[in-house]
Amino acid sequence: MTVSVVYPGSFDPVTYGHIDVIQRAASRFSRLIVACLQNAGKDPMFDVEERIALLEEVTGDLRNVEVAAFDGLLVDFCREHDVRLVVKGLRAVSDFEYELQMAQMNRSIGGVETLFLTASPIYSFLSSSLVKEIARFGGDVTDFVPPPVADRMRARRW
Amino acid sequence: MTVSVVYPGSFDPVTYGHIDVIQRAASRFSRLIVACLQNAGKDPMFDVEERIALLEEVTGDLRNVEVAAFDGLLVDFCREHDVRLVVKGLRAVSDFEYELQMAQMNRSIGGVETLFLTASPIYSFLSSSLVKEIARFGGDVTDFVPPPVADRMRARRW
Amino acid sequence: MTVSVVYPGSFDPVTYGHIDVIQRAASRFSRLIVACLQNAGKDPMFDVEERIALLEEVTGDLRNVEVAAFDGLLVDFCREHDVRLVVKGLRAVSDFEYELQMAQMNRSIGGVETLFLTASPIYSFLSSSLVKEIARFGGDVTDFVPPPVADRMRARRW
Amino acid sequence: MTVSVVYPGSFDPVTYGHIDVIQRAASRFSRLIVACLQNAGKDPMFDVEERIALLEEVTGDLRNVEVAAFDGLLVDFCREHDVRLVVKGLRAVSDFEYELQMAQMNRSIGGVETLFLTASPIYSFLSSSLVKEIARFGGDVTDFVPPPVADRMRARRW
Amino acid sequence: MTVSVVYPGSFDPVTYGHIDVIQRAASRFSRLIVACLQNAGKDPMFDVEERIALLEEVTGDLRNVEVAAFDGLLVDFCREHDVRLVVKGLRAVSDFEYELQMAQMNRSIGGVETLFLTASPIYSFLSSSLVKEIARFGGDVTDFVPPPVADRMRARRW
Amino acid sequence: MTVSVVYPGSFDPVTYGHIDVIQRAASRFSRLIVACLQNAGKDPMFDVEERIALLEEVTGDLRNVEVAAFDGLLVDFCREHDVRLVVKGLRAVSDFEYELQMAQMNRSIGGVETLFLTASPIYSFLSSSLVKEIARFGGDVTDFVPPPVADRMRARRW
Repeated sequence: MTVSVVYPGSFDPVTYGHIDVIQRAASRFSRLIVACLQNAGKDPMFDVEERIALLEEVTGDLRNVEVAAFDGLLVDFCREHDVRLVVKGLRAVSDFEYELQMAQMNRSIGGVETLFLTASPIYSFLSSSLVKEIARFGGDVTDFVPPPVADRMRARRW
Repeated sequence: MTVSVVYPGSFDPVTYGHIDVIQRAASRFSRLIVACLQNAGKDPMFDVEERIALLEEVTGDLRNVEVAAFDGLLVDFCREHDVRLVVKGLRAVSDFEYELQMAQMNRSIGGVETLFLTASPIYSFLSSSLVKEIARFGGDVTDFVPPPVADRMRARRW
Repeated sequence: MTVSVVYPGSFDPVTYGHIDVIQRAASRFSRLIVACLQNAGKDPMFDVEERIALLEEVTGDLRNVEVAAFDGLLVDFCREHDVRLVVKGLRAVSDFEYELQMAQMNRSIGGVETLFLTASPIYSFLSSSLVKEIARFGGDVTDFVPPPVADRMRARRW
Repeated sequence: MTVSVVYPGSFDPVTYGHIDVIQRAASRFSRLIVACLQNAGKDPMFDVEERIALLEEVTGDLRNVEVAAFDGLLVDFCREHDVRLVVKGLRAVSDFEYELQMAQMNRSIGGVETLFLTASPIYSFLSSSLVKEIARFGGDVTDFVPPPVADRMRARRW
Repeated sequence: MTVSVVYPGSFDPVTYGHIDVIQRAASRFSRLIVACLQNAGKDPMFDVEERIALLEEVTGDLRNVEVAAFDGLLVDFCREHDVRLVVKGLRAVSDFEYELQMAQMNRSIGGVETLFLTASPIYSFLSSSLVKEIARFGGDVTDFVPPPVADRMRARRW
Repeated sequence: MTVSVVYPGSFDPVTYGHIDVIQRAASRFSRLIVACLQNAGKDPMFDVEERIALLEEVTGDLRNVEVAAFDGLLVDFCREHDVRLVVKGLRAVSDFEYELQMAQMNRSIGGVETLFLTASPIYSFLSSSLVKEIARFGGDVTDFVPPPVADRMRARRW
């Protein structure tokens, strides 16, 4: 029995926290599809092509990981890829409540089950938006995102 | 790639909420081992043999589900059964905080990853201790536990 | 002693979750006024006239329920209608914190007491914004909103 | 339409926080029954007769308030008194989660609806167990409990 | 050993809740710098000069309190002022989660430690945004902000 | 202005999580008194003399740290030591709620202010009770407690 999972997100940009979830899920499941949301809010730092290129670069050594753009409902994406499991990383209680609501909805409308992994403690305070805010003010983000992402964030600022 | 999971608990007694998690996990994973904690607190309603017998009775139609007693550390149980994934049902935020702490600890000491499923909304308020309290005062528990459990709870009261 | 209550919200659109609160409150109190907030955020799906028309249609069989538009402070609305009790449905902890803050403020500035009902478990994951997002991407919302609302949401999409 | 409510608790002992809920509920509803749980945990400070006597003393000026002992299931107590509404005070999120679970259960098994009031901010940190701990070490509790309760707590210590 | 602390915020406008934190922190630490965020969201009621003038007016009697504008990263502000401690007031759990994330990040990128004070209960429901909403609809805010702030809020409305 | 703080706890036994809080607080404040609660629950692993001896051993290199036993009310301990600040480490939301209640009470009865530090992420899942449970079943605790504590825990098991 092959178990495939989808890991959805905006990944604007991908952080070490996301990579940690990807590695842990990839080591436990047969196949992991990283679903990169096309429309990443009002003012994305990177467009979806760049975000996918960065995801592919930083997950290139994981053989059972694929990256794909997605738009619309997550349950439709799952159906198209014939996957019935979604993986999410949980950092905090406030994450949990929103995610729980989404999980119930996705199970209700599409029969898709969500599995929650706890964020590794050292990444529990990390979020893409915090990293972007630090970069915006010239702070150092090399502890939070892998080198290719840090490079492009620096380039973006000038 | 076969994906086996362990579902631990006291199951004193097993409720429809537990059965819901068992069914959902069993339908997504190759093999599910229900790990029944021998020492279920100070004043258990059923001893571990009864709890296991009830679990086996109510999961008898699920072919990839096994039931086993466990004592000691969950990570040792997982190692003995060669499983690296644990499944837990989450009902509420307070569950989440304790479970998150346990999950981090189990990953730290035994490399065991915990996957959280959200409880089905209709079972989100259900717990073994509430069911026992209702039964203790002569209330009707047939909505919360399967018939064989309800029968034994009734028998226990006299 | 007649006990009247106000149930405020945006109702953009009214869901089965709202209707559940309305029915439960209407069965316990003498009179229930549904207070429909005129300004329902930046980008409402329905204007206040449509939202009120839908509310009236789906609560038409409840004799002690009225629907009214409101703008400004809730405590002023309550004073104008000579009501000193507000009813809110609580789904989750994050709801609770914001609602608790509002409740304390409304008691402080207007002597209005807020009573919280817990959302029925089957509607605990339901919100107007989730329903709108599903409809926006062509998903089926008939499990979440009553037929007249589902009809207008479908019409709205073309 | 007369609206009666039950306010359950251990009241070991009654604090200004409880009295605040009683006063607020009594001013909004036709009739309030304070249901004093007979079995108040393992090591109660006051037995149920003393707790009821104190409750009656401190609520004596509220004409629509009664005090009664209760044992067993709250839904049975409500049925016997022909009441379908329970009132509880909420102080914090952790209160909320347990209370929400109880509320869903009571609605499920007995058709009893629970209304939550938010604790007044100045009493939000007050609990019977904290007050008992302060008294046990000779601290001053006159800010937290009414004079007759403070008197008996002092007497109890020698 | 002199202990200096920074108290950051938008203060749009300063409320009695902020003043309570300022007074309590000023009485415990050698020196308190109120750091007023220049960019206070999309639609501030007062620009940074007005907000600082009001802060200075209402903290004028506290000799070890200074007010300064800040922009950019809080850790840079702290480094420039040679301070390694930040003070924040916590009202609710949802505050706590976001603040905890910020605190971990600030410790990680700048070695700045955050100390949390609990909001005084009577101010636990108070926020600048709620106060602005009340003022916007002509409500009375004199219980929530000091007189000079209330005056300017009234003036602003015409 | 000298700023002294008290850090209270059971320390049964002291973990790396406690030591992290002690080191961080000691580096920011003039003087830190570790207040070791004599009565550490029903079934302590170590008596108060052993717990204090271990605390002194593991904090021996911190010159501004003292260890003392305490019994009774924390506010009395603070008064006797002429300290008006308490430091606590926060790991999770559920910690926060109980601690907030205690902090409000201690401020109310003794004028003692509580400062909360966030636990370092890598220790966020660590607790004395979890460590004891691991040790009880023969697990390895060397990642969670310093060597002298691990030694005595091993000795205790035989």
